[in-house]
Amino acid sequence: MIKQFIKPARTGAVFLVTCLAASIACASDKTSYPDAAASDPAKLGWMVGAPPPPDRIVRFADGSYFQFPAMRWSVSNFRQLMPTTNVSRGLGAPVPLARALRTDIDALTFVPLGSKEPMTWEQSLAANYTDGIVVLHRGKIVYERYFGVLTPEGQHGAMSMTKSVVGTMGAMLVADGTLDANKKIAEYVPELAKSAFGNATLRQVLDMTTGLKYSEDYADPNAEVWKHAQAGNPLPKPKDYTGPQSYMEYLQTVEPEGEHGEAFAYKTVNTDVLGWVIARVTGRNVAQLLSEKIWQRIGAEQSAYFTVDSIGTPFAGGGLNTGLRDMARFGEMIRNNGQYLGKQIVPKAVVDDIRGGGDKAAFAKAGYDLLKGASYRDMWWVTHNADGAFMARGVYGQRTYIDPKAEMVIVRYASNPVASNSANDPVTIPAFEALAKQLMTHPD
Amino acid sequence: MIKQFIKPARTGAVFLVTCLAASIACASDKTSYPDAAASDPAKLGWMVGAPPPPDRIVRFADGSYFQFPAMRWSVSNFRQLMPTTNVSRGLGAPVPLARALRTDIDALTFVPLGSKEPMTWEQSLAANYTDGIVVLHRGKIVYERYFGVLTPEGQHGAMSMTKSVVGTMGAMLVADGTLDANKKIAEYVPELAKSAFGNATLRQVLDMTTGLKYSEDYADPNAEVWKHAQAGNPLPKPKDYTGPQSYMEYLQTVEPEGEHGEAFAYKTVNTDVLGWVIARVTGRNVAQLLSEKIWQRIGAEQSAYFTVDSIGTPFAGGGLNTGLRDMARFGEMIRNNGQYLGKQIVPKAVVDDIRGGGDKAAFAKAGYDLLKGASYRDMWWVTHNADGAFMARGVYGQRTYIDPKAEMVIVRYASNPVASNSANDPVTIPAFEALAKQLMTHPD
Repeated sequence: MIKQFIKPARTGAVFLVTCLAASIACASDKTSYPDAAASDPAKLGWMVGAPPPPDRIVRFADGSYFQFPAMRWSVSNFRQLMPTTNVSRGLGAPVPLARALRTDIDALTFVPLGSKEPMTWEQSLAANYTDGIVVLHRGKIVYERYFGVLTPEGQHGAMSMTKSVVGTMGAMLVADGTLDANKKIAEYVPELAKSAFGNATLRQVLDMTTGLKYSEDYADPNAEVWKHAQAGNPLPKPKDYTGPQSYMEYLQTVEPEGEHGEAFAYKTVNTDVLGWVIARVTGRNVAQLLSEKIWQRIGAEQSAYFTVDSIGTPFAGGGLNTGLRDMARFGEMIRNNGQYLGKQIVPKAVVDDIRGGGDKAAFAKAGYDLLKGASYRDMWWVTHNADGAFMARGVYGQRTYIDPKAEMVIVRYASNPVASNSANDPVTIPAFEALAKQLMTHPD
Repeated sequence: MIKQFIKPARTGAVFLVTCLAASIACASDKTSYPDAAASDPAKLGWMVGAPPPPDRIVRFADGSYFQFPAMRWSVSNFRQLMPTTNVSRGLGAPVPLARALRTDIDALTFVPLGSKEPMTWEQSLAANYTDGIVVLHRGKIVYERYFGVLTPEGQHGAMSMTKSVVGTMGAMLVADGTLDANKKIAEYVPELAKSAFGNATLRQVLDMTTGLKYSEDYADPNAEVWKHAQAGNPLPKPKDYTGPQSYMEYLQTVEPEGEHGEAFAYKTVNTDVLGWVIARVTGRNVAQLLSEKIWQRIGAEQSAYFTVDSIGTPFAGGGLNTGLRDMARFGEMIRNNGQYLGKQIVPKAVVDDIRGGGDKAAFAKAGYDLLKGASYRDMWWVTHNADGAFMARGVYGQRTYIDPKAEMVIVRYASNPVASNSANDPVTIPAFEALAKQLMTHPD
């Protein structure tokens, strides 16, 4: 029921980036959509022409930008739709990623979960509405493809992969003693004292075990996610609107539900709170800090950007947009225990903490059928599989998948019509595991 | 009378970038403003804090972003206020500008026009509310300063300097035969046939000798500039709004006034028409073409960007934002007859055409007291002074000044409260001429 995913004007960017695997509403979407070829945004010609044909114009204000298939154009063009802030790569020379392209990957076969028919890796790309995918093995690019309107020079919405980037920065501040994971959020941001976050610890926010009255059920017009979206929408509010005017104002209204520390519950607002804590203690917002601490130090070939609300707050829960290869550089740096280009960019202790994972029992309560035995730590998804793989996940199939044992990093940008990782996991999980196995058994 | 320059919500970005030297309204602004130090946007702390203090928030929707002194922050942060489109620098390594910094420039003295008191070069920077200035001599940086919130990693609104960049691209298309300067605009864009532009030649548009009913008198609420601004504003239109919804729709409504080819009349819409012609014949909008033809080829250290309207049209008349040094690279390339880094980026014939200037008699009719003997060609201001200097000019004192004889290029980004070059020309003209003389008489 595509109507679940469409809300008229003024709902804003948050929608796109908050819906993720666990959402019941998302997971229940049984609509059949045009396939990747039929919905190819380049073939459909969105925003091409001077002017584009009326039925090929993608607008922010009327909400059409996140309707499928126009959404497939939007995810590579958020800055044309809304205000953004730069994540500068600095002014130095990019450091090219070495290339050792392999020809054995497209033909690789695997069996999707719940299926009996084998599928090839190449088929999996279209099945998952891939916009771009790059695979690093031992730091070299062994595979790279672009589809639709994404190019090497383009930038794609990382959506909820943003959370893992912001979580990493939060964990860095814990590691260097700037933040204490055991402290209550109210100690850092007194404005949140009366909200559900006030008596949650920073650790509970980092691992999303807070007890919050915050529904991401998009089918429910009264779900809190819509209020969050409307608060953060950079467009002027309707005249009769009396609610919160910014992400920060919204966060102060979140009410408690259940106990903190009991169960993993994937809720975007946790990352926005973390972003606020980071800004308060460092004097830099997450975009500025990401530039300074990471993006200027990994040889990035493009500056990245964050979408912002009407008072310039970067959307920490899902507003990051990057080049495909730059996200691969970030992933490779994490795979190398935070070391990259001869520098320790993220402390090894942070990567150890992420890889160690979070509370498996708390995670199990959230009921992710396809992620049994997994956990969530510092806003990363930790599989605890035999390879110790862990990942960042975005709502339309974006993924940064790090397999330490296979010395492999996969970054995929995608625009799957079904706003749920449960839609692509049955293909993605066995595909990525099959590739890891291939690289381990045939390393050259 | 600052009220002239403030219009409530929904007037949009165009305001900032269309007012220039000739405007009677602009030139009549006799308000006294806080000086550069008192209005320093870094000291005032705009958009600093999580959240910023209420009186330090700069918003797009309510128009506060272009009120002085907040405007001094806005001009370095347009992308945080409105949607934009990338002008990619590509993915290669930037080519650093050589440096040979001089210490004799700050103390240089000159006498401002209409004054008897000498002024130093250093004093001129504050007098003109300079945000950043770089001087190249024989291709090397001999002087570079940043003020307020502009940094080497930042990007500043080029405003009407955009016109010279777009005009250069138009002249390139004439030079390679893609466009015929003698053809009527309607032949390229039939949608403009019934507008004032329909029977104007491309040459008349390039040199702004069209006869248009288009007032840029900001004091007049019925001036066409406001309609242009409202059409291009990316925010949703008010419910009762029935006017044009985009730059392109607006251009079709411009009515004739007087004869084409008679007199120079500086009107922003000419550049927007040129942008439309360029998009129609090349299949690329001005942002895409600028990236492909120039920005990827001059060793730029940053991608640039254009602001866009609600259908993604870059604002050709004033929407470009760049790093300071990258605009200097562009200027240096032009100074070198279009050659740069061993490549012919702009045909020499184009630079010859610009330097040769336009119709001086037509220009004289526009009555620029401080630009006597000058002309306008391919959207560049040509002084016809002894050095053959020519320049790009932006509304708040932005300037790219090329002095071929002195082998000098100056790029200045500024945020002068008076939206008119007539406000800074009395200081700028003798300052730049004095520096040219110094470099010629003391070349090392």
